[in-house]
Amino acid sequence: MAVGLGDLPVLHPVSGFELGIASAGIKKTGRRDVVVMRCAEGSTVAGVYTQNAFCAAPVLLCKQRMQSQPRYLVTNTGNANAATGELGLQTANAVCQKLAELVGCPVEQVLPFSTGVIGEPLPVDKINAALPDAVAHLAEDNWALAGEGIMTTDTLPKGASTQFEYEGVTITVTGISKGAGMIRPNMATMLGYIATDAAVSQDILQNILHDAANKSFNRITIDGDTSTNDSCVLIATGKAAVAPIMEPQGELYDALRKAINQVAMQLAQAIVRDGEGATKFVTIEVQGGAHQQECLDVAYAVAHSPLVKTAVFASDPNWGRIVAAIGYAGLSDLQTEQVNVYLDDVCIVANGGRAASYTEEQGAAVMAQDEILIRIELERGGCKETIWTTDLSHEYVRINAEYRS
Amino acid sequence: MAVGLGDLPVLHPVSGFELGIASAGIKKTGRRDVVVMRCAEGSTVAGVYTQNAFCAAPVLLCKQRMQSQPRYLVTNTGNANAATGELGLQTANAVCQKLAELVGCPVEQVLPFSTGVIGEPLPVDKINAALPDAVAHLAEDNWALAGEGIMTTDTLPKGASTQFEYEGVTITVTGISKGAGMIRPNMATMLGYIATDAAVSQDILQNILHDAANKSFNRITIDGDTSTNDSCVLIATGKAAVAPIMEPQGELYDALRKAINQVAMQLAQAIVRDGEGATKFVTIEVQGGAHQQECLDVAYAVAHSPLVKTAVFASDPNWGRIVAAIGYAGLSDLQTEQVNVYLDDVCIVANGGRAASYTEEQGAAVMAQDEILIRIELERGGCKETIWTTDLSHEYVRINAEYRS
Repeated sequence: MAVGLGDLPVLHPVSGFELGIASAGIKKTGRRDVVVMRCAEGSTVAGVYTQNAFCAAPVLLCKQRMQSQPRYLVTNTGNANAATGELGLQTANAVCQKLAELVGCPVEQVLPFSTGVIGEPLPVDKINAALPDAVAHLAEDNWALAGEGIMTTDTLPKGASTQFEYEGVTITVTGISKGAGMIRPNMATMLGYIATDAAVSQDILQNILHDAANKSFNRITIDGDTSTNDSCVLIATGKAAVAPIMEPQGELYDALRKAINQVAMQLAQAIVRDGEGATKFVTIEVQGGAHQQECLDVAYAVAHSPLVKTAVFASDPNWGRIVAAIGYAGLSDLQTEQVNVYLDDVCIVANGGRAASYTEEQGAAVMAQDEILIRIELERGGCKETIWTTDLSHEYVRINAEYRS
Repeated sequence: MAVGLGDLPVLHPVSGFELGIASAGIKKTGRRDVVVMRCAEGSTVAGVYTQNAFCAAPVLLCKQRMQSQPRYLVTNTGNANAATGELGLQTANAVCQKLAELVGCPVEQVLPFSTGVIGEPLPVDKINAALPDAVAHLAEDNWALAGEGIMTTDTLPKGASTQFEYEGVTITVTGISKGAGMIRPNMATMLGYIATDAAVSQDILQNILHDAANKSFNRITIDGDTSTNDSCVLIATGKAAVAPIMEPQGELYDALRKAINQVAMQLAQAIVRDGEGATKFVTIEVQGGAHQQECLDVAYAVAHSPLVKTAVFASDPNWGRIVAAIGYAGLSDLQTEQVNVYLDDVCIVANGGRAASYTEEQGAAVMAQDEILIRIELERGGCKETIWTTDLSHEYVRINAEYRS
């Protein structure tokens, strides 16, 4: 039921970054569910992680190892290794240890990632048994297979790729992501891997990723549930024949940042388009806020309202539910008579009440579309924020009532 | 699909408080949808109202008129008269004006209440045409009919009643409520009317209602949507032959407060039991918080998580979703290894991880019940809060996708 999400686009290989996929049979026999990634020597690696206090064991290990010049990433789907306590840390590390032995590197240079059911013990033996096969298949052109390998309730793999020229050299940025439920900002149930062959110092790479995530992965929500496992990493292999980026400025820096932002945005929006049970892709734009936070508060109140979401599912321009959500977003001294609301270009609420020009037919026509823009004007200041979300359908309930069974 | 909610209990008449019901045909011809209530001269009236910034026109009028010694309450269902701007105020007042003329009192002594669809103009003519009939039928024993008259998506009317003796005199507290969706604290899409024949000064009555609402109506959530119209009023007619309560102390004060709290709690829980699509009644108890607010933050994070709600619907003890919700509730420095979670008496999470003694069968047995207690121990302090909520079912989506059509 993904909205406007088709086959994977061409995913250009990134020189110095290889991916290998294997089947450990964690939830289903034969399903490719383990992905190993290798970064060329000298790569820099940045990461952003969930802010959930119950962050999973692999997230804890990743955070510890970001300064150890990571060389390998190992991901399993089917089990999140979250809320698993001390045993979780041991099992996550056992997988890293096995991979480290296979490839001959210190365990500190292996980053683990897990996604799937929370609270069940990680099946270490199954995963470890699959690692040699994954390592044997490491190759730069395996992005599409890896995109499938990290899926959980996703219905389609998600990837994005772009290239640009700098001083006659082609620079590539390619990424994959997964996530369809337990999605809300501060990283979703979401794994994202983006690699470039540019060379970037670690601190600048971290800043670029932080900014890119704030404009993309941290602006999407499906059900408002912040996952325990969200992780997004950005790798710069330095294999392209251009000078390394050591300062946050210059033509190459600007072009790379733009390319990474673009890939991150496409990956994040793909997650929403494939949201659990999604039948609509909804953009919520809040303008005229006094500051960023109040724009986000309004946008998320609307995005998380089950009543708005079910109305969108029903293609019902029940705009009263939108204004009700704006009203409880917690803005101090909101002057409701200054609020305007648009569905695409149709003004449905003007000065806090139903717009005189509005007809139900106009609203119904917009709501019937697969992609809908809800634009809210607060007229309190000059700030603006945009987030992306989905509707709430029968299928969402079915998926999440039946998951695990 | 109401959970554990049967026929109305006996609703004892309250001397000095009459109710009259009529049919205005607002949404359905023949449906009784207009209720007039009359408070005996000398009654005191207290009210608590929605905190939604887009609060409806009738709420604005009610708030203005609380100090005008209200004598009449007029309620319509089928139309919320919310987000209707200046016209909304005019139409709400036009209904009050008509009633004032009929009964011969100043318009300031009439409080209007509306519930139903947001954003559509109030059908004043229909309502006004029904008022004479409602007034003609005013009687003290009409509580049950009035309970039906205020319903929207409710499947059952909701009422509660209790009596106690003081110095040989029987004191009565009786109430009705409505609400099934757009329900979350700070008053839900909820109307509540409670009356007693005790005599209580207005300021003390207001405090009693405020406290009672905070323990009942402000501790329930169905979908997290705070409505534009929530209103709860408490009327003291003073017709019982006991001395008036002028101080917040004494045996009568204590007994009355207890009775009002009990009625408010039953009315609030009835709303949850009849929550849209509800198949389960869930109590969430958070203990060991450093302060009340963090207990509430955790309780509401769990109560609002669509993933927890769908798991409850599926009778699936997918406790990982509960800990994930605790983890994103925003508590600073949450030590996850101190967190314990129980389903009824079954310990599912001990010290932040799956309890050693826990078996899936134990969890499944509790989840299969209609009524479930989720108890969370934070071990950060001595505070405790309890809220009540429902699951998220196919039926919830169906009701809210089809409402209006």
